[in-house]
Amino acid sequence: MKELLFEGSEKKMEVIFTPTKEPLRNYPDSFWKKLCDKAETRIVSRFSSSFCDSYILSESSLFVWDHRLLMLTCGQSSLVNSILSLLKKVKKSDIELLFYQRKNEFFPAKQKSSFKEDLEKMRKKIKGKAWCFGVPDEHHFYLFHSESESHPRQSDRTIEILMYDLDDHIKKLFFNATEASEIKNHLGLDQIFENTQLDDYIFKPMGYSLNALIGKNQYYTIHVTPQDPGFYVSFETNVEEGSVNEITEKVISLFKPFTFDVIVFSTEKKNEEFISESFTRSAYFTKNLDCGYTVNFSSFFTPITTDRSAFEL
Amino acid sequence: MKELLFEGSEKKMEVIFTPTKEPLRNYPDSFWKKLCDKAETRIVSRFSSSFCDSYILSESSLFVWDHRLLMLTCGQSSLVNSILSLLKKVKKSDIELLFYQRKNEFFPAKQKSSFKEDLEKMRKKIKGKAWCFGVPDEHHFYLFHSESESHPRQSDRTIEILMYDLDDHIKKLFFNATEASEIKNHLGLDQIFENTQLDDYIFKPMGYSLNALIGKNQYYTIHVTPQDPGFYVSFETNVEEGSVNEITEKVISLFKPFTFDVIVFSTEKKNEEFISESFTRSAYFTKNLDCGYTVNFSSFFTPITTDRSAFEL
Repeated sequence: MKELLFEGSEKKMEVIFTPTKEPLRNYPDSFWKKLCDKAETRIVSRFSSSFCDSYILSESSLFVWDHRLLMLTCGQSSLVNSILSLLKKVKKSDIELLFYQRKNEFFPAKQKSSFKEDLEKMRKKIKGKAWCFGVPDEHHFYLFHSESESHPRQSDRTIEILMYDLDDHIKKLFFNATEASEIKNHLGLDQIFENTQLDDYIFKPMGYSLNALIGKNQYYTIHVTPQDPGFYVSFETNVEEGSVNEITEKVISLFKPFTFDVIVFSTEKKNEEFISESFTRSAYFTKNLDCGYTVNFSSFFTPITTDRSAFEL
Repeated sequence: MKELLFEGSEKKMEVIFTPTKEPLRNYPDSFWKKLCDKAETRIVSRFSSSFCDSYILSESSLFVWDHRLLMLTCGQSSLVNSILSLLKKVKKSDIELLFYQRKNEFFPAKQKSSFKEDLEKMRKKIKGKAWCFGVPDEHHFYLFHSESESHPRQSDRTIEILMYDLDDHIKKLFFNATEASEIKNHLGLDQIFENTQLDDYIFKPMGYSLNALIGKNQYYTIHVTPQDPGFYVSFETNVEEGSVNEITEKVISLFKPFTFDVIVFSTEKKNEEFISESFTRSAYFTKNLDCGYTVNFSSFFTPITTDRSAFEL
């Protein structure tokens, strides 16, 4: 399996623009192509709702609303270069808030830069604070947010569920599927929420991505990296309906991970937590950010009762 | 605290020589000094029993018996270079078995080489197999063992207990102590086993090491890296008396970690496991090696009920 190593862990840029800015969706296709080029990723599929343009990328996803931008990249992509490029092309006064988030990698030595190096580059262009949630030798992520004078105008909650080491039955599905629809239909990935418009894509030799849009500004997105070691699935949504517990239970019941992390961004003073009876929490970090968001990070494990073999190098 | 970052995770070389080889303890001091130089570490303290020479190093420990060698180094040391140097200086036919073990680092990007790079270098000089115990983005370690024609002649068990994130009371002791004896006496580190000869050392600005010898060929060694993030203590012993459970319980009752790993090497077909009622096991890997040893790796967590703050970069 050695040749199949692929870094599933995501980097994420999210930018909220002022309502007075020229709508992002007026930008030509070439603008988005260039933004993807900078991160060394390319568009493989797209569709639009009345409110959002969704792009599946060779390494994850891009969502473009009129005044909000979300870009996720995995693999060896250099998302920081997209951020630097964007900061050259838009007026800083049009940016209400910029987040750059980077999950710890499975293979950090293969990355083009570390988060700290990314941070140094960004700080030359935009002021902000950076945080580490978790400890360096376990699951953790880094978060940069720009300085923001205006606090969020509305309730805005994002849930990220990062799942590891799935049930064998689910693993096999991802190893063997040849069409995206096999995966989607078998797991009911179009049924997680109602009134969804979606697009999905299966990669060669393996890998699966799904982008879904709901109403004016809600989305969910799923990315699956079936390559061993480190079978990894990420799920992210800002869907408003349902508690953190309800949404997390629904998602983990589909993918059946042995281990998962839950990250919650909200505009509340205290975030809802995921509480489980069958999983044990091994990490729990939280921070009220100056920009008006509260972020929680928790890791959960299934208590392990059977052994696994070491793997040969 | 940023300036105090120190890599506590160890690399380890263990070499068992044939009984017919000239005793290692006949080698001059300059030999051992050079071996340490190669790893970019130096001897800070030494003592001898009738059977073993013990060295505390600026980065961990060296134990020299007549026909066995154990060297542990942490920080940014390059222990692989000591191994390559040793392989030049001794006859390969005198080596019964060589182990090289490397724990995952807190700060892998700051290491001079990866385990895979070490492995490539070693494989040019000695044949053997390499394994990974654990998954890449959680606690794990790599192990190389040389090809060995003769299976271990006797029962030989090593227990390694790697402890993270200690009780605040214990942390303070390590932050505030100015003499090694304060730490040793407060925790009773000389009382873990009976009939011990020992040496310990406190580092500036912080850090603590202890080497202890018992009888003909038994030892234990403790290394403490109090620098945040990643307060880390390693304990290792081949003491024969007591079960894995008894020894592990004793050690974790002293240091009170929230998280720890237990690694057991033995010549049994199936290793004893540590079983705990108060900790949850989150990883359990095992392998019967061709060289006659069985290796187990388990990780344990205290279920987390209170939150911790993210830390700023």
